[in-house]
Amino acid sequence: MHHGHPHPSVRLAGSQDARCIAQLLHDFNNEFDEPTPTVVLLTRTIAKLLERDDFVAFLAGVEPCGLAILWLRPAIWTPGCDATLAELYVRPECRRRGLGAALVATALAVAADRGASLMEVPVEESDSAARRLYERFGFSRMRGGTEGDLMYHYERSLAGSDALTTSDGA
Amino acid sequence: MHHGHPHPSVRLAGSQDARCIAQLLHDFNNEFDEPTPTVVLLTRTIAKLLERDDFVAFLAGVEPCGLAILWLRPAIWTPGCDATLAELYVRPECRRRGLGAALVATALAVAADRGASLMEVPVEESDSAARRLYERFGFSRMRGGTEGDLMYHYERSLAGSDALTTSDGA
Repeated sequence: MHHGHPHPSVRLAGSQDARCIAQLLHDFNNEFDEPTPTVVLLTRTIAKLLERDDFVAFLAGVEPCGLAILWLRPAIWTPGCDATLAELYVRPECRRRGLGAALVATALAVAADRGASLMEVPVEESDSAARRLYERFGFSRMRGGTEGDLMYHYERSLAGSDALTTSDGA
Repeated sequence: MHHGHPHPSVRLAGSQDARCIAQLLHDFNNEFDEPTPTVVLLTRTIAKLLERDDFVAFLAGVEPCGLAILWLRPAIWTPGCDATLAELYVRPECRRRGLGAALVATALAVAADRGASLMEVPVEESDSAARRLYERFGFSRMRGGTEGDLMYHYERSLAGSDALTTSDGA
């Protein structure tokens, strides 16, 4: 598959898709036993995000059963922008049909078209299906490709009362 | 140190700091033998970025010798926003004075103040000083803290002629 020819079943989401995206995000979290906002709340959030230039959502399937969410931001080191693939989900009953690959291919094509020179995606070690998919598309957890240093994704919650104190109180 | 009381030597950068930030970024890449745009080009880029609401730069030192760069974007799963610590640098001769910690503390405080519920930062495995620093401030490469799954940062360049073809041509 050449990314320049996006999968026919993948399309850019528009403002009319807010509820559909919200439902997919909701089901995504439910599948993995993560807490999730309600579909109503997510619909409101996504509707606002879809108005932005730097937020791009993709839907896969005629009756959408997969989605990808892309953020764009201006690059510091290169002209154009950097892209982050923030979410990628295909419903269990729709897997193994190439929809995940089609979503990644389309996201890469659209990001390149929008002037992105880099795409980043955080991936959990145990998510071997996602890791295989990204690696097939040329993503690497080694800086600069296969020879560079291994890169970790670190996170820190800022919610809650202890958000502003270091763990050792230093 | 409590993050609510930012280090006195760290301040938010303003439009007058574009060249100073550019010089630090340039020296950062030179120190690590990475290719870098010229200071003139970086100054132009940073001047534009400093006009944006979602880009925040911090300078450390009276004669600035350290910087941090923060991106903010609306969150999908929570109210408010998510923050990415995109760059953190302290000149070699200014290290071991707590400026890196002061930059991280200030970035966390400002992000929380701007409504961020999460801060992300990609870190290379071999950069043990940075990893120790982030871990001291409660960052983890394990999802949800110490018990979750290890998270990798994957990247994919979109520059060059092969940007739009998968590595295996599939």
